[in-house]
Amino acid sequence: MPMTITEKILAAHAGMDQVEPGQLINVKIDVALGNDITAPVAIREFEKIGVETVWDRDRVVLVPDHFVPNKDIKSAEQALLLRKFARRHNLTNYYEVGHMGIEHCLLPEQGLVGPGDLIIGADSHTCTYGGLGAFSTGVGSTDLAAAMALGETWLKVPESIKFIFNGELPQWVSGKDLILYTIGQIGVDGALYMAMEFTGPAIEKLSMDGRLTMANMAVEAGAKNGIVPPDEITRRYVEGRAKRPYHFYRSDPDARYAKIYEFDVSKMEPQVAFPHLPENTRPVSEAGDVAIDQVVIGSCTNGRMEDLREAASILKGHKVNNNVRLIVIPGTQEIYRQMMREGLADLFVEAGAAVSTPTCGPCLGGYMGILAKGERALATTNRNFVGRMGHPESEVYLASPAVAAATAIMGKIAAPWEVA
Amino acid sequence: MPMTITEKILAAHAGMDQVEPGQLINVKIDVALGNDITAPVAIREFEKIGVETVWDRDRVVLVPDHFVPNKDIKSAEQALLLRKFARRHNLTNYYEVGHMGIEHCLLPEQGLVGPGDLIIGADSHTCTYGGLGAFSTGVGSTDLAAAMALGETWLKVPESIKFIFNGELPQWVSGKDLILYTIGQIGVDGALYMAMEFTGPAIEKLSMDGRLTMANMAVEAGAKNGIVPPDEITRRYVEGRAKRPYHFYRSDPDARYAKIYEFDVSKMEPQVAFPHLPENTRPVSEAGDVAIDQVVIGSCTNGRMEDLREAASILKGHKVNNNVRLIVIPGTQEIYRQMMREGLADLFVEAGAAVSTPTCGPCLGGYMGILAKGERALATTNRNFVGRMGHPESEVYLASPAVAAATAIMGKIAAPWEVA
Repeated sequence: MPMTITEKILAAHAGMDQVEPGQLINVKIDVALGNDITAPVAIREFEKIGVETVWDRDRVVLVPDHFVPNKDIKSAEQALLLRKFARRHNLTNYYEVGHMGIEHCLLPEQGLVGPGDLIIGADSHTCTYGGLGAFSTGVGSTDLAAAMALGETWLKVPESIKFIFNGELPQWVSGKDLILYTIGQIGVDGALYMAMEFTGPAIEKLSMDGRLTMANMAVEAGAKNGIVPPDEITRRYVEGRAKRPYHFYRSDPDARYAKIYEFDVSKMEPQVAFPHLPENTRPVSEAGDVAIDQVVIGSCTNGRMEDLREAASILKGHKVNNNVRLIVIPGTQEIYRQMMREGLADLFVEAGAAVSTPTCGPCLGGYMGILAKGERALATTNRNFVGRMGHPESEVYLASPAVAAATAIMGKIAAPWEVA
Repeated sequence: MPMTITEKILAAHAGMDQVEPGQLINVKIDVALGNDITAPVAIREFEKIGVETVWDRDRVVLVPDHFVPNKDIKSAEQALLLRKFARRHNLTNYYEVGHMGIEHCLLPEQGLVGPGDLIIGADSHTCTYGGLGAFSTGVGSTDLAAAMALGETWLKVPESIKFIFNGELPQWVSGKDLILYTIGQIGVDGALYMAMEFTGPAIEKLSMDGRLTMANMAVEAGAKNGIVPPDEITRRYVEGRAKRPYHFYRSDPDARYAKIYEFDVSKMEPQVAFPHLPENTRPVSEAGDVAIDQVVIGSCTNGRMEDLREAASILKGHKVNNNVRLIVIPGTQEIYRQMMREGLADLFVEAGAAVSTPTCGPCLGGYMGILAKGERALATTNRNFVGRMGHPESEVYLASPAVAAATAIMGKIAAPWEVA
């Protein structure tokens, strides 16, 4: 029977020839991931299970990225718990302050996840790795605990939705805009417990950074996972980087989909998601006159090199508006170093931005740019729920790095082409 | 009657020919400084006074540096208060996120304070500017409020203590070591409400960065101010930088001192202040075996270029110990840019450090490296009181950037010469 890429990866990890949507299966996992918010809970649960060691010290990955360098005593205690666990189990892939990055930027960069993998992580944006042609999904901390002990987990095989993006992407329209547009079309529950498969000519030309951005936000449509068929672009990204063998799965031509959406991207504009849901999208030209207090460029959604280069290309020769704080957060230490090598860090600071050490920081209201009552941020992050970045009466607008840079210059939501 | 440099500056600002220790005088101030912790209180008090505008929009300086980019909603509200006040009064020297730095690094760098000035700031380390030959001291927020309205304040003329540092500084012994040694000798109340005047051959050769470090910690001996006689080194620093005319005052040869201390620095070692007081100093070779979890290089005490260069020279070709988090915090955006130009930021990251945007951060337990229970930090900061950097049961050891870098490599308190 024909299968989708998602079904094929799940079947392979279940040791089965065939799986079907709705089926409950037990799968071997390739990587189990935790961070400084979720891993402490998982570690306490793990210790109740009573096993001596983790399933595989190379494949239990811990990344303290949400509140480190520690923002307060509580976060310091959480980070300490991770550190002690990592030392006790001699974990290969524990990323200490100074080595760490935002987990979902770090794992692909370090070659810890690859095409055909099955990855679970106690973080909702674990779905990011679908950009590589992997099945990856967020789980609860208890599931993570069991996975850390056993190297296995239970999953229900999701139905798949196929998205076909036709046409050529206009200038300034990025993976972020495609996924915002898609969520705008189907809504934040438009893909509930489903696999979002991103295909078509526009995706085939999309960079790996853009694909990771798209898969990253699949969960914002309620999806179990987002996935991009691996191809030559994937191969170029993983070659020389992957720490384990990888496998390219592709959907059969006659695979079954719950739905198929077809979009023409050739007339698409950069998108902006208005408060308080990622589905409240508008083309940037219809954003109206929205003054912005803070712009954040970074996060697991848009903290990669391509994102920073795009923002820098717009900021070059300009100054951040006097009424705006611009905070730029590279996704990892490697990205930070590359950003310095290319002169982008200097360019950002010259323009009037604060450049942060890699962290999730403000995205989830952690630190490094929390909003006061009544303040408005435009961010390249992934969620604009009520109070997400601070005060319940603050607002977050989601957009691409290009729109973010233009907005930082103009002091209000702006399109890249509005910047002289 | 002969006067000390401190007395001369105070007399000039009181419009008097002569002042004497113990005298209460009303002085005109050159600059009034507030930050995101103290200015909000001062602003509320200012608004009760009922004046329309600040005394001088060029001389009321506001620097949000303790908790910005905002660490939480409360700090965001505080920063917003400063921002609104700065806009309402059209302040020339309000330093927004992206432009800011640690106040006591920023003001000298920007030429806002100079030799002969009288500066008050609602921050205890305002005494830093004594390094330039200015009288500067920390005041309460209510005093700041009155000063913002009137451009004047009341002061009691302090007695002066003269410190004479003889001999040549050995390698790796810096201004930080001189001031730690001094506090070790006289205790944390050894100069209570007095002026500490730093003189002698070793001071005459000391860099401006080293002098600022020494004056910065005068308050840790209880002093009203610390001061270094301005000279050619001072002139080179302020030329082309000072935004206002400046004046070099020097103590009369027969000026009266409450005490005179004379130290020979030629055999001095780098110093380490053990918990929980800056007076608990020991030569680094007598520190014993003290494992360290976190090293912080930065702060208004040691976040300047010379500090970063010194640390980098030791870290070059080495890696941060696996058991240590090293956090490097440049004092200002200019210092950050210079650090990148010289390749130091890359060197720190390559060694395994986190490089932060300029902020006071961990020094006062703000954010960016807070300690958990039982953790130990060695920091180039200025205070190691109980719980200063986090949990009440954590510890802070104070030292120079050279000792900090060596400690980061060795994983325990170490002298620079222990690093191969």
